[in-house]
Amino acid sequence: MTGSSFERLRERLAEVNDLTKAATLLLWDQRVKMPPGGAEARAEALATVSRLAQERFIDDEVGRLLEELRGLEESSDYDSFEASLVRTTRREYEKAQRVPPELVGEMRRASALGLSAWGPAKEEADFEQLRPHLETQLELRHRYVACFPPADETYDVLLDDYEPLMKTADVRAVFDELKQELVPLIEEISAAGESDDGFLTGDFDPATQRELGLEIVRAFGYSDSEWRLDETAHPFMTTPGAGDIRLTSNFRPNDLSSLFATMHEFGHGVYEWGVDRSLARTPLHSGVSLAVHESQSRTWENLVGRSRAFWRWFYPRLQQGFDAQLGSVDEEAFYRAVNKVQPSLIRIDADEVTYNMHIILRFELEQDLIDNRLAVPDLPEAWNARMDQYLGVDVPDDARGVLQDMHWSGGALGYFPTYALGNVISVQIWERALQDLGDLDDRFERGEFGDLREWLREHLYSLGAKFTPQETIERVTGSRIDAKPYVRYLREKLAPQIA
Amino acid sequence: MTGSSFERLRERLAEVNDLTKAATLLLWDQRVKMPPGGAEARAEALATVSRLAQERFIDDEVGRLLEELRGLEESSDYDSFEASLVRTTRREYEKAQRVPPELVGEMRRASALGLSAWGPAKEEADFEQLRPHLETQLELRHRYVACFPPADETYDVLLDDYEPLMKTADVRAVFDELKQELVPLIEEISAAGESDDGFLTGDFDPATQRELGLEIVRAFGYSDSEWRLDETAHPFMTTPGAGDIRLTSNFRPNDLSSLFATMHEFGHGVYEWGVDRSLARTPLHSGVSLAVHESQSRTWENLVGRSRAFWRWFYPRLQQGFDAQLGSVDEEAFYRAVNKVQPSLIRIDADEVTYNMHIILRFELEQDLIDNRLAVPDLPEAWNARMDQYLGVDVPDDARGVLQDMHWSGGALGYFPTYALGNVISVQIWERALQDLGDLDDRFERGEFGDLREWLREHLYSLGAKFTPQETIERVTGSRIDAKPYVRYLREKLAPQIA
Repeated sequence: MTGSSFERLRERLAEVNDLTKAATLLLWDQRVKMPPGGAEARAEALATVSRLAQERFIDDEVGRLLEELRGLEESSDYDSFEASLVRTTRREYEKAQRVPPELVGEMRRASALGLSAWGPAKEEADFEQLRPHLETQLELRHRYVACFPPADETYDVLLDDYEPLMKTADVRAVFDELKQELVPLIEEISAAGESDDGFLTGDFDPATQRELGLEIVRAFGYSDSEWRLDETAHPFMTTPGAGDIRLTSNFRPNDLSSLFATMHEFGHGVYEWGVDRSLARTPLHSGVSLAVHESQSRTWENLVGRSRAFWRWFYPRLQQGFDAQLGSVDEEAFYRAVNKVQPSLIRIDADEVTYNMHIILRFELEQDLIDNRLAVPDLPEAWNARMDQYLGVDVPDDARGVLQDMHWSGGALGYFPTYALGNVISVQIWERALQDLGDLDDRFERGEFGDLREWLREHLYSLGAKFTPQETIERVTGSRIDAKPYVRYLREKLAPQIA
Repeated sequence: MTGSSFERLRERLAEVNDLTKAATLLLWDQRVKMPPGGAEARAEALATVSRLAQERFIDDEVGRLLEELRGLEESSDYDSFEASLVRTTRREYEKAQRVPPELVGEMRRASALGLSAWGPAKEEADFEQLRPHLETQLELRHRYVACFPPADETYDVLLDDYEPLMKTADVRAVFDELKQELVPLIEEISAAGESDDGFLTGDFDPATQRELGLEIVRAFGYSDSEWRLDETAHPFMTTPGAGDIRLTSNFRPNDLSSLFATMHEFGHGVYEWGVDRSLARTPLHSGVSLAVHESQSRTWENLVGRSRAFWRWFYPRLQQGFDAQLGSVDEEAFYRAVNKVQPSLIRIDADEVTYNMHIILRFELEQDLIDNRLAVPDLPEAWNARMDQYLGVDVPDDARGVLQDMHWSGGALGYFPTYALGNVISVQIWERALQDLGDLDDRFERGEFGDLREWLREHLYSLGAKFTPQETIERVTGSRIDAKPYVRYLREKLAPQIA
C-alpha cells in the first residue's frame, strides 16, 4: 500500500513537472523566438498552464498521499530518494497550498505581459512604459505575501521563493559584512589609480564571439546533443526538460562581455545538467536554490573564467580570433583588464567587487518597495540617488539605471540578493574542491576542466534539491554561509591592483 | 442564465485552447530548436499537456453546457458566433468524448518519439529504425478506430480527423477522376520530350535563398511582428497563438526548391493569420480542414508562385541574387523549368501534375495498412512497387522512398489525401476570386498581391472553422468539391509542353 502511495505521488509530481516544463518552454520561446504579435496569446497560455500546474499540485490527493507517506519517510534513510522526495514535496505543498491557483495564473500572466513591455521600455529608456506593470507586480506581490502567516519581515516571504528557508536578517548580516569589507577595498583600488582596459572596447564581430564562447564552453562540457546557445538582450539559462539545457548570451558588437556571460550561463546550465537523472520529473530534479545556482555560474565565470590559468590556455586563441584588436596586447595586460575593478552603471558588466554593491542596492530598494516606504513612480530617483551613494556614479538615463534588469518587470522581487550570496558561496565550495583536487592551474592551462566539473557534479550537482540549501552547502563545504573566504579571495586576487 | 452558460463554455474552451497551443509550441520547438537529448522529457510533457487538454474538453461540464445551450443555438442565426461555436464544439465534443485521455496522451507520446526517430532513420536510409515506431502507430490507430462506431470503411475514421465529414468513398471518387485525367496527361507530356531545367540544380547559397524567400513572402503579407521563418528538413507551418505564425523551409544548397516551400508554407500561414481575431481562444480560430488549408498553400505556391506573371515580377530579382547561375537563363526558360512535368521520387519536389500520383499511392497504402492487407515490414517493398507502377520510377533507397515524409512516424494516417484534395479546391476558389477581381496578372507583375490576399481573407480565411469544410467550400465557390476546374487549369497551363 505504501509503495503504491509513493508511486501515485510520483505520478502526480511528474504531471506537475511536465506542466512546469511546458511553461518553461513557453517562457524561453517568448524571450528568444516568439514574434511580438504572439505576446497576448502567450500570456494566456502561460497563465493557464501555470494555473493548472498549481491546481494539480495543491490537489487534496497530494496532501492525502503526503500524510500516508509519513511512515515511509520516517522509516527511510534521510538521504534516500523516498524520504527526500516526501520531505521536500511536503514543504513545497504546504507553501503552494496557501496560494490560490487564480493568483498564480494572474501572476504568470502579469509576468508575461511585464516582460514583453520591458524590452521596448528599456530600448526607449522610458520608465513610464513599465511603471503600470511594476505597480501591478507590486500589488500582486502584496496579495501573494498576504497568503502566508506574518513573517519577521515582509521580505522574508518573497526571499523564500528563491532562497528557501533563508531570512532577510541572515542576508542582511552577510551583506553588512560584505559592505564593511568591500567599501574600503573599492576605495583602496580607486586610490591606486587607473589601469588600461581600453582595448576591451572596440569592434568585436558577434559571430566570432559566439564561436569563441562555444569553444570555451565545449571545453567545459557543453555538447550539441544536450545544449543550445541563443542570443538575447539579457543572458539567461533555462531547461525545458532533462537533457535539454538552454543558454543565451548577448553578443554585443563592441565588447567581449559575451564571453563571460556565456561562461556564466554555462555554470547555471552545468548545475542542472549534472543533477542525477534518476530525479527527473520530480521537484528534486533542479538546483537547490538560486544562491547555490549563482555560486556555480560565478564559479565558471569568475573563479575559472577570470583566472590567470584559464587565460594562459585561451588567450592565444582569442588573439587569433581578434588579431587586429588584441594582437599587440599581452596576456598579463588582458588578464588585468578583465579583472579591473571600477564602479560602473550596469550590474551584469560589473567587476567581481563592485558587483555586490549593485545587489545590495537592489536588495534595499526591494524592501523599501514591498514595505511601502517607496512608491513605484519614485523608483528611478531612488535608484539614481543610491547609485551615487554606493558607487559614486551618475545614471544618465533609466535604460542604464532602473530599467537595465528584467527581473522586476516579471515580478521577481527577492531574487537579486541570491546573486551576491552566490558569490560568497562560490568561494566556499571552490576552496573545498581545491582541497580534494589540488591546484588546478596546470589543468586549466591545458584547457582541461573535466576534473573540476566532475568534482562539482559528484559533490553538488548530482544532489539536486534533495536537501535544503543550507544542508546542501554544509554537505559540500562543511560549514554555513560565510563571507570570509570570498573576501579573502578578492583581497588576494586584487592585491596587485592595490599595491 | 443562458448567457452565463455560454460564457462558461467559452472559458472552458479557452483553457483547452491554451493547452493545445502549449502543445503546439512544444512540437514546433521539438522540430526546430530542441537539442536531441530533450526528446524523452519532451515526449512526456507533450503527453501530459495533450491528455489534460483532452480531459478538460471531454469533462461532463462541457457536455452539460452544450445541452443547456441548445436553446441559444436554435434561437441564434446559423452564421452567428454563438450558434457556430456551440454547433462546432458539439460535434468535436461528441467525437472527443469517445477517446480516453490516456489513449490521447499515449498517442501524443508515441508521436513525439516516432518523430524523433524519423530524422536519423531517414538520414541513414534505415527503415528498420522506424519500423517499431510505425507498428506502434498502427496499433494505436487501431485502438483509436475502435473508439468509434463501425464506419462504412475503417479509413473513414482516420480521414475524419483531418477532413471532417468527408468519406473515403468521396475521396476515391475524386481521385479516380484525377487518375483518369492525369495518367494520360503525364504520358502526353513525357511523349513530347524533355525540356531543359538543368540550371535549377547547382550551387545556390542557402542564406540568399532565405533572403529571397523572405522578400517574396513579405510582398505576400509576411511581417516580422507576427511571423517567423526557420529551417527544418521538412517544411511546415504552425501557429502557437494568434499573431504568432511560424513557417519553416528547407534551404537546400543545391536547388531552389526552398522558394516554393516558403511560398507553400506562407499559404498555410496566411490562412491562419486571416482568421477573424474575435474567434481567438476558441476551436473556431483555425483553418476549417486540411484540404482547405492545402488549397491555400497550393494557391500561393502554384497558382501564384508558378505563374508567368509572378516571375515577370521576381525573376530579375532572383537573377540578381544568383547571377552566376541564372544570369544567362531567360525568363521564359526559367518559367518552363519550374513548371516542368516529370515523374520523380520525392513528393514535395514533385510538379503540379505528378504530385497527385504521390498522394494517391499513399492514400492506397494507408488503407492497406489500416485494413491489415499490408504489414509494416512489407511497406518499403509495397511502396517501391507502386512507385514503379504509377510513376515509372525506381526507388534507390528508403530515404528517397518510404522514409521521405514524416507523417506516418508521427501517426498521421489519413492526412495525405487532403494534399491532393487541396489542389482540386485551390482552383475552384481561384476561379471565384478571378471572377470578382478580374485578371490579376498585371498586379502580380508589379509585385502586388494585396488584392488577392484580402479577397481570400474576406471570403475564406476570416470564416475560420465556423462552418463545415463542405459548407465553407460552397460558401466561397458556390459548388461542391469538383476536380474539373483543376484538370482544366492543368491542361491549359501545360498545353505548351504537350504541343
